[in-house]
Amino acid sequence: MATSKATAQWNGTLKEGNGVMKYSNFEGPFTYASRFEEGKGTNPEELVGAAHSGCFSMYLSAILSADNFPPTSVKTSALVHLGEDDGPKITSIDLNCEAEVPGLDADKFAQYAQTAKEKCPISRLFAGTEINLSAKLIG
Amino acid sequence: MATSKATAQWNGTLKEGNGVMKYSNFEGPFTYASRFEEGKGTNPEELVGAAHSGCFSMYLSAILSADNFPPTSVKTSALVHLGEDDGPKITSIDLNCEAEVPGLDADKFAQYAQTAKEKCPISRLFAGTEINLSAKLIG
Repeated sequence: MATSKATAQWNGTLKEGNGVMKYSNFEGPFTYASRFEEGKGTNPEELVGAAHSGCFSMYLSAILSADNFPPTSVKTSALVHLGEDDGPKITSIDLNCEAEVPGLDADKFAQYAQTAKEKCPISRLFAGTEINLSAKLIG
Repeated sequence: MATSKATAQWNGTLKEGNGVMKYSNFEGPFTYASRFEEGKGTNPEELVGAAHSGCFSMYLSAILSADNFPPTSVKTSALVHLGEDDGPKITSIDLNCEAEVPGLDADKFAQYAQTAKEKCPISRLFAGTEINLSAKLIG
């Protein structure tokens, strides 16, 4: 269907070194401090969270649109928790969604949101973690 | 250990709508065309590929450094294949790594690279796909 490309480079050791992640027209520098402390720069978990919230929002729009409930907007945030379990591990991701969908009731919306959580391709990719969803109709 | 945050918004239907993914100081617009066709913008798979290549490169540096083989550089590209299997699915990710590591032989390097492929936290997160690794010492 589609192939996407990205690259990264790390120079030097874990703690003194530095890296950059690149895709499209974006270059994101990262370091040990930007990943594990409060240092300036980005980290892989931020990209993973953005990909997940983006894919979930698009997929939810797709299944709502297919059933003639085109959403005005779907806003989703992702909190990506990096912990430890026999080495570093993404222990969970919290998705928090607020959507404006004319004509849809809350119970039906909750079912659509649950389906998007289970079926969107980034959720399917992230089989190695627990995904927690909170979804609310607004507007 | 660390929590990272990102957000996204999708407006309108799947095909006519548009979205944006945000984290750190980055805003990446995306559309149906930028995900499934050749349209301008980014998509979740590019972010996922950047996160994977970045995490793999950093983790490989970490385990090499811990054994007193600090790498000069670790460069990794990711090809993320979005296909179909009972709905849209990331069917595989190809990681291609070239690293400059003074004093290390090719066989030992291959073992470190294999370990990074299995143990880096983004690989562990991506349990829902097949990860193919090609890794080569250079320099």
